[in-house]
Amino acid sequence: MQILETRAPLKMSSKAVVLLSGGLDSATVLAIARSQGFDCHALSFEYGQRHESEIHAAKRIAESIGVTEHLVHTIDLSQWGGSALTDDIEVPKDGESDGIPVTYVPARNTIFLSHALGYAEAIGARDLFIGVNAVDYSGYPDCRGEYIEAFQALANLATKAGVEGDAFTVHAPLLELSKVEIIQKGVALGVDYSMTQSCYDPSNGEPCHQCDACRLRDAAFAEVDGVTHQGS
Amino acid sequence: MQILETRAPLKMSSKAVVLLSGGLDSATVLAIARSQGFDCHALSFEYGQRHESEIHAAKRIAESIGVTEHLVHTIDLSQWGGSALTDDIEVPKDGESDGIPVTYVPARNTIFLSHALGYAEAIGARDLFIGVNAVDYSGYPDCRGEYIEAFQALANLATKAGVEGDAFTVHAPLLELSKVEIIQKGVALGVDYSMTQSCYDPSNGEPCHQCDACRLRDAAFAEVDGVTHQGS
Repeated sequence: MQILETRAPLKMSSKAVVLLSGGLDSATVLAIARSQGFDCHALSFEYGQRHESEIHAAKRIAESIGVTEHLVHTIDLSQWGGSALTDDIEVPKDGESDGIPVTYVPARNTIFLSHALGYAEAIGARDLFIGVNAVDYSGYPDCRGEYIEAFQALANLATKAGVEGDAFTVHAPLLELSKVEIIQKGVALGVDYSMTQSCYDPSNGEPCHQCDACRLRDAAFAEVDGVTHQGS
Repeated sequence: MQILETRAPLKMSSKAVVLLSGGLDSATVLAIARSQGFDCHALSFEYGQRHESEIHAAKRIAESIGVTEHLVHTIDLSQWGGSALTDDIEVPKDGESDGIPVTYVPARNTIFLSHALGYAEAIGARDLFIGVNAVDYSGYPDCRGEYIEAFQALANLATKAGVEGDAFTVHAPLLELSKVEIIQKGVALGVDYSMTQSCYDPSNGEPCHQCDACRLRDAAFAEVDGVTHQGS
């Protein structure tokens, strides 16, 4: 696992698959991967989430930061539900609660990373990037460092490339950063955060400013000097 | 990991998610899970495979053996290809070759198990069944015991249920059985193998009898006394 981007810039031909949700974290991760010289292949999911505006945001970001390819992959996780993001369950707007929130989507990052792994192996990429971080963790089990390490180990047992010694690395460069630090890093890399969308429950593309994702984002932007909070 | 079905029959209300491809292995696994008293939720995938007849076989098997629910989940792995089963690459018909065959689909079992995990967590199932085995392994890295163990460990780090101590078990009851032993077990449990479909490259629903999957199947049925090879 590569938690922080300590590695030297790579030759331009190294391919990476970057999970791109359309939120500020994954936009920052894409900018980091680009800054390290990776030839980026972005992967977004239509997974039955309520807010399709995420996909539009992802497309704008991919175009702005620059990717070789951007795949939007459809997987209907609402087929079994189990989350406020895929079911008809109310998104909480009364501040952060204890424990794992109802916005948790069962096995979501495992599903996303497994598709990213298949895509990566098929195109000859050996680096995967995911924007999990300690703040966005909010109790999500699949946003922890030990989870990312376990997925990387699995990836190298699961694949032809892995067992042949051409190992996969799962990069989570935001894992130990605060939201403020993430924004500062993205601004330094030229990310236009007005393109990103974080809200769990937007209305006509506008953020609610009440859900956990909005609260975290708004508080972070309020703390960062000189950056106007234009996005949702 | 539960390799062989040594556990005692459970109360009828225990739910399990069973990966059901339509082939003889997964049909046998479903029969084993049913014989152990599990309330079975079968999960099949339309993943851009050439042979949609697999799905029809899965539906017949699910109905025959008996499931509470059978979900057919669409994921288009042909979006990135990388396999003779999703691409326009010829399926080999000259006998088994060395190494990992071109019918390997990048990260397929990881993708299938991750969706099964999400489905299981959403419906309150804690048992997953998959029909990997040593013979069908044929060099596939994601059909090995150590891979199944790693996935189970990941499942218990990745999920709300797992971190709360309500652990998942990944059952691979065929892992160490030969094809002949699998068929004998299925016959003892009343599986009608004429409903199953194993061929990698069927034509109008008829098996080619030349691909690796047909060769393994045909040889096994030839060895099992008293069982007519009617299926494909």
